[in-house]
Order: sequence, then C-alpha cells, then structure tokens
Amino acid sequence: MSASDNPSTLPLPVSEVSHWDRSHDVVVVGHGAAGGAAAIEACRAGADVVVLERMSRGGGATALSTGLVYFGGGTEIQKACGFEDSVEAMLAYVEKAAGDQADPERVRLYCENSVEHFEWFRALGVEFSPQFHDHKVTHPITDDSLVYTGNELAWPHAEAQPAPRGHKPAQVGEAGGVLMEAILRGSEEAGAAVVNDCMVERLVVDAAGRVVGVCGRVFGEPLRVRARRGVLLAAGGFIANKEMLARHAPDLLHCNYEVGTASDDGRGIQMGTGVGAEAVNMSEGLFINSYYPPESHLKGILVDANGQRFVNEDAYVGRTSDAMIRKADGIAFLIVDDEIYGPTQALHKLAAVEETIEELERALDVPAGALVRTVELYNRDASRGEDPYFHKAAKWLRPLSAVPFAALDCRVGRSIYGGMTLGGLAARATGEALGSDGKPIPGLYVAGRNAAGLCRQGRTYASGLSIGDATYFGRLAGRQIASALPSEQLPSR
Amino acid sequence: MSASDNPSTLPLPVSEVSHWDRSHDVVVVGHGAAGGAAAIEACRAGADVVVLERMSRGGGATALSTGLVYFGGGTEIQKACGFEDSVEAMLAYVEKAAGDQADPERVRLYCENSVEHFEWFRALGVEFSPQFHDHKVTHPITDDSLVYTGNELAWPHAEAQPAPRGHKPAQVGEAGGVLMEAILRGSEEAGAAVVNDCMVERLVVDAAGRVVGVCGRVFGEPLRVRARRGVLLAAGGFIANKEMLARHAPDLLHCNYEVGTASDDGRGIQMGTGVGAEAVNMSEGLFINSYYPPESHLKGILVDANGQRFVNEDAYVGRTSDAMIRKADGIAFLIVDDEIYGPTQALHKLAAVEETIEELERALDVPAGALVRTVELYNRDASRGEDPYFHKAAKWLRPLSAVPFAALDCRVGRSIYGGMTLGGLAARATGEALGSDGKPIPGLYVAGRNAAGLCRQGRTYASGLSIGDATYFGRLAGRQIASALPSEQLPSR
Repeated sequence: MSASDNPSTLPLPVSEVSHWDRSHDVVVVGHGAAGGAAAIEACRAGADVVVLERMSRGGGATALSTGLVYFGGGTEIQKACGFEDSVEAMLAYVEKAAGDQADPERVRLYCENSVEHFEWFRALGVEFSPQFHDHKVTHPITDDSLVYTGNELAWPHAEAQPAPRGHKPAQVGEAGGVLMEAILRGSEEAGAAVVNDCMVERLVVDAAGRVVGVCGRVFGEPLRVRARRGVLLAAGGFIANKEMLARHAPDLLHCNYEVGTASDDGRGIQMGTGVGAEAVNMSEGLFINSYYPPESHLKGILVDANGQRFVNEDAYVGRTSDAMIRKADGIAFLIVDDEIYGPTQALHKLAAVEETIEELERALDVPAGALVRTVELYNRDASRGEDPYFHKAAKWLRPLSAVPFAALDCRVGRSIYGGMTLGGLAARATGEALGSDGKPIPGLYVAGRNAAGLCRQGRTYASGLSIGDATYFGRLAGRQIASALPSEQLPSR
Repeated sequence: MSASDNPSTLPLPVSEVSHWDRSHDVVVVGHGAAGGAAAIEACRAGADVVVLERMSRGGGATALSTGLVYFGGGTEIQKACGFEDSVEAMLAYVEKAAGDQADPERVRLYCENSVEHFEWFRALGVEFSPQFHDHKVTHPITDDSLVYTGNELAWPHAEAQPAPRGHKPAQVGEAGGVLMEAILRGSEEAGAAVVNDCMVERLVVDAAGRVVGVCGRVFGEPLRVRARRGVLLAAGGFIANKEMLARHAPDLLHCNYEVGTASDDGRGIQMGTGVGAEAVNMSEGLFINSYYPPESHLKGILVDANGQRFVNEDAYVGRTSDAMIRKADGIAFLIVDDEIYGPTQALHKLAAVEETIEELERALDVPAGALVRTVELYNRDASRGEDPYFHKAAKWLRPLSAVPFAALDCRVGRSIYGGMTLGGLAARATGEALGSDGKPIPGLYVAGRNAAGLCRQGRTYASGLSIGDATYFGRLAGRQIASALPSEQLPSR
C-alpha cells in the first residue's frame, strides 16, 4: 500500500467532525487477543465499550497461531505434570526472555499474575490437558498442553530448575482459534458492542491534543465514534507492510512468510505516532526458520558460508533464526549425517548430500578445509559430551559420522523464514501511550502488537509471550480506560 | 535527563502563545553544519532567517570532528592528485555506502552535485591541499587533504576503479573547526540573525497542524519565535541521550565515547515526532573501534570469543566495529605477531602476549584448538595471497609467524568504542519532514542528524558522509523553506 492510495493516518481535529455517529466510554480498535481481552475487562468494570474490527470477524493473528500462551509460577497444569515453578523462577527467566530493552514493570506484573491470568482463560472456557509434551518442537501437534517453548533448557538462558511454561489448549493441531473463540464469545457476553468490517482511519483530537474519538469506514460509509474515556489501539503489528519494514526493520524483509494477518499493516502504530506517541524498538522482530522436528536435527551443526558455527543448535527457534540472519548474513546450512536426518515440516531442501565432509565442503562452496576443521573439532568435543563453543546441551552432542552427510538448506530465499514485528508504541503497562518525553498522550491507550510489549527481542523470545502479553496487558488497559475520567469531566487545559 | 526534569517536547497550540517575540521567514534550530548551510542558502535566496543555537556558539558535532567531507566525481583535488573519478563511479559506490534503507533520491543528488558542493566550501574560504595521503588511517594527521575513508578498496564494496573521496581541509590535526568557522562566518555574512544560548523547547502548531513557530528559552527567559515560511530542525543526533538509545538503538549503549556533543540529546527528533513526523532507521549507528594506525595491524586477524574470524580486517572502521558488536557480541581480539605490532592511537591494551598460538588461545580462554586452526588456515591461505573467508586485500595478507604473538583487546568495556546515531526523522531530500503516511508535515523541515539522511548504516559508512550530508541537504532545505509560501498566504484548510 503506498502513501497515495491510503487515507492519512494523521489525526483529524475535532472541529472538523460535524457529528458523532456513536458515542461510547471506550473505543477499542481491533478485535484480536489484546482488543478482546480489553473489551472484556472494560465491560466488567462497568464501561460502555465498542470494538471496531477491520475484518468480517475478530481473531487477528492469534486466531491463526498455534495457540501457545506462556504461563508459569505454578499453574494447575504445571503441577499436574509434576513441575515445580514459582513466581521468582519465572521472573528470573522472563527477565532474560524479554530482552535488554524490556520494561521491568511489565515483566514483574506478568509473572506475578500469571496463575491468575491462566485461570482467567479457564474461566472463559479454555481447557488445557494435564499432559507434558517431552519433545523439542515448536508446538505440540497432539493435544498435549504443556511444553518447553523457549531457551529454558538452552544456553545462555538455561535455568537451574527449568520449568515448561508453554500452555496450549487441549486440541490436536493448531489451537489459536480455540483461544480467540473464547475471547470473542467473552467480549460479546460481557456486553461489548462489536462493529465488524470497520476500518478505523484516523484518531480525532481536540484542541488540547486529547484523543476524543476515531473516524473510519464501514463498507465505505463514514463512521465517527466518540470515545468518552479513551481509545485503545490494538490493531496488530506491521509485518504485512513492506514499506514500513524497509523504514524500520529491514532485516524482516528477509522473511517470506508473514506471521500475522493482512491487517498487520502498522496502521495502528501510525495513527499513534501521528498524535505524538513514540514508536520504539521498531527494528526488532521474531524470525522463524525451524529445522526441527525431527528433534534429531538438534544433533546437527549450523554453519555459515565459511563453514563456521555461530549458535547453539538446541536454542529456541527465534534465537537460532535470528543468528542465521544477523550472524550468518542469511547463509546457513544444517550439517547432518545419515543417522539423524529426516524431512522437516518446513520442507527444507538438501543443498548437498555427500560421502565425505570434504566433498560436502566443496559442494557448499565453503573455503577449503574450513568445514572439515569445524567438524573435526566438533566431533572431538562432542565425543566427550562437550561444546565449548556454544554450550549445546549434552543430550544433543554426538559426533557426525554416519555416511552420507547432508546439508539442509536454511538460506534466505531457499527456505521458509517466518517473521513477526516486535516494535510498537511506547506505553505504560496499564496501556497509556507515551510521547517521546515519557508523558501520556491524553485519551490514547495501546496494547498487543501496537505496543512495544513484554518481549522486545526475537533472539530471547519464547513462544506464548505474544498472546500472553496481548491478553494480559489488554486486560490491564481495558480496566484502566474504564476507570479514566470521561472527557466532559476533565478540566480544560 | 529524565522525563520529569525536561520540558515537554509535544507541540504547543498557537492559541496558547499570547505574543511572538520575534518573527522571521525561516527559523533554524541549531547552528551546526546543517543549520549553518541552510541559513546561508536561505539568506542568499532572499529570506529573513534566524538561527537559534543552544550553546554559546555554533559548531555542533562537526566542530569537534576530523573535518573529513566525502566529495567526488572529479574534484580539483582528486585531479591534482592524479585520480580519475566520475559521477557514475561515485554513484555506484555511494549507493552501497548509503545502505539498503537509503533514499535513492538523496544518493543521486549528492553525487551529481558533489563537485559543485566542494566548490561551495572553497567559496566559503575552506582550503584543501593537493596532497594524497597514501596510508590506511581514520584521518590524516598531516595537512594532506585527500584520503580513502571508506570501503573503496575493501571487500565487498571494492571499486573497479577506486578513487579516494575523503577531503580534509589543509590543516595539521583535526580540521572540523576549520569547516565550522567558515560556515558560521558564512551564515552571519549572508545576513542570518543568530541567537546563541537559546534552547528551543517546543514547536508551535496551528489548529490545522501546521508548524508556525517555536518557543524556547534564552538564559531562562522565554522566547517565542514565529516562522512565516517554516522551521528547520537541525539540532543533532541522540548519542548523548542514554534513555533514547535504550529505546531505539541499544547496541550504541556499548559505546563509551560519544561522537557528538552534549546537545546531541535527540530533542530535535522528539519535537518532530511530537507533531507526527516519523522517526525511521532509529536502531542504526556508527561504531568506531580503531585498531590502526599502525596500518601493519591490518595484517593481523580479528577473532571472536571462539577464535573465529568474522570480518575482513582491512574494511572501513565502521564495518569492522559493527562486526565486533553485532557478529562477535562485543568480544573481539586482534591477533598480531611481533613484526606487525605497534601501539594504537586509541591505546588498546594487550589481552595477552605469548610465545605460541596454543598459549595465546589458552590465555584468551578460547576453546582448545580453535585459534590454532584459525591461524593455521589463515597462514596457509595468506602465504598464497588468498583470503577465501573474507577477501582481505592481498596487500595485507601475510602469515602470522614472528614470535611473540599478541592479542589486542578490542572487547566492549576494555577498549574505546566511539558511537554516533544514524536514525532520524523521515524527510524529503529537500527537507520536508514526513509523517508515517509519507505526507509532509506542513511548515516542518529537517536536516543533518535530525533527519534519516544519506548514509543509513554504520557497516557501509565512509568518513565524510555525515558532514557532506548535513551541509548539502542543509543547503537544499534552506532554499526550499525560503521558497515556501508564507503562512499568511496559505489557504485555510
């Protein structure tokens, strides 16, 4: 979408709004995980809420997802599967997962309230099975509900007392739809009005800069909605907007699979920056190039164009994929032998199959001797159960020796790289959007991928942190807006 | 500086401005290279110009710099030194130097007009010597004026017919002051009014969102300045604002030397985003950890914590330093032997000095055998004049064999990393600040480090591109604002 065929995202002065078509306490833009959770809580707090959804039905990126949510601190499912976890242990781990730019307040609130948030989902009717999935996968395709989804077992984040925290609804296959059906049902049952097929185009601001409503279109007809207490932007990330990626997160242009929907075009973020909210962390994203299952592939080694290793192969897929892009410049091969090789779900092709490492090296156009030395040193160390380079767990260490040898092609352009943005508007944990001076933009709130949220780095990410973030901080934002003074009661500046 | 002790950067509605203390066609914020060049051109175009400078005198980061400017296409100095260059050759090179996110229009204009821009400087009284400095340095400390300042001779950007384009005023030592004295003199001679010690705090906007002036303080007293044709933000980058670095460019927090001034606190960028201009490319910066001169160090090898090479050591310092941070995670050593070692200007310490590579490897805590293999392969290839890994030029290839061996400590925290931001507001080449919808913010212009400019990546940067960018596009912006319709002639929306 180019600038010319796209309505402006700059705010409309309220003086140009001749009348309001609707008026509500709370206007939520987007009926995904964040907007739905916010609508539920705002309604429960007594507010009059409308949700404006661009598609014909809500769901957003969550509905298309695997449905993993990162819960911990001792959920019933963790206990039933025999895992001990605590708020402290979860906090120590999530602090690392959230990354160097993380908001400590978000991390703390998320971990302290994780069991309560898990129960909130159960009260919405989402069921989890007391079954632990004891395999290295991106997500269980069985109806097992508990799985490791991050670096809990992998260097450099391995925990002293690791606990699995990825929770998937008890359903065979992908389960994001289960979560969203529960949330959509919940927001309607709580009393939120929902307007589908409604594209919100601009925020409306008063002379003092306060956000007092939105204007948009429903099947081409204008709709002007007043927000007495506040507007929540919960309209998704920007993985579907290539121009925005080029300006902010060019590394994500390497991705050929968008983890999101066509609505993830950044319009929510743009409307926010149009009124002075600060977009932060915009260059970060999650990359997903999953060379497992089969988990035996973790016994292979990832090498770059020079036949050098660059990451521990048993790390979370977000970490290994980030390294493929940013360390290996998008040129990566997984070297396997005959004993550990198997086809992948992502249908990786084989760049070469050879009887010796020397031949493999030539076939891959790696400098002479480079891959041979890498494998020699790796095999020597692996036979002792050691990986002094990248500290892969002993479970996955084994010399590569079963002829033939092969190279899975993990190169950019030759394999599937999923991508998702992690940048968004700066906001308090309770949703207030912030300007670059750190002060709230009156009347504007933000949650989900429209916000710079809980986890701000793909290389430390764990699956389930996005849906967890969207729903938990969506809830907080919904409560916060519901309790905000309505604009007619505000003192004039 | 925290949010609480800092005046808001959000715009002030003009309705809250009771009177203007001054009124000018053009208001320039910042009297550095960009603001000064803009003031000169706006005055020459007949506009009434005021420059508001935060410090007691103009100069900005350029005054503290080495004074290199990237000119080409056949300057008199290039010709006098016997180098052939053309607009086409320069364009081909600068396209790569500017990076993947570059604005092609900026690149084209800059290269096509480089000789004219060089003459503009000479007409301001800046003198260059017809002397080529034939050494690998970050800048000549002699009065030589012409030098290679980028990757023109280095993989992957080496040119077919390379030409040096770094031009330094004919002065022993650093020469940024020479440039700025000429520019400051030029703007005053052209007739610009200059208000020093003036901290611009906020932009002033009318009801339609047009920027119509600024308000600030001079020694604590308020100053409200009306801008009839436009405001130019030319107030520098944000390397001095640690909170902004954390939000946008966390890699730059590794730097312990700010390439800039205390005024490079991002306030100009923040004022721009406060009125809806889009900040882009914010995560990018230039890193500078210079392990040469002596240029013999280019014959050494840079290795990471695992004793693996990660970049060609003869690349531009911005490229090698970016790789130290982003490829090697800030753990880098330059391995040298007795024949090529010498102390550096940046006073690198020696992490270890040993009689054998095996001992060096142990002393550096590199995995057993890793550095030994790296040096073995490097020596084997270097003895044949080859570097199949990173394509270092043959001139710098020589086996490391003269005992003792040493490791220069280039680690983050153990050596000097200079840093400079490369992100800023989106703008047309002629200075109009752009919103996230790609449309101009009426009345707002931007140049220098307040803009996302010519070169947008540290790893492809060449010295001289920043001053070249600031002055050339400052000039264009100055002319553009001078020709803009004054606000009283604008149709009301």
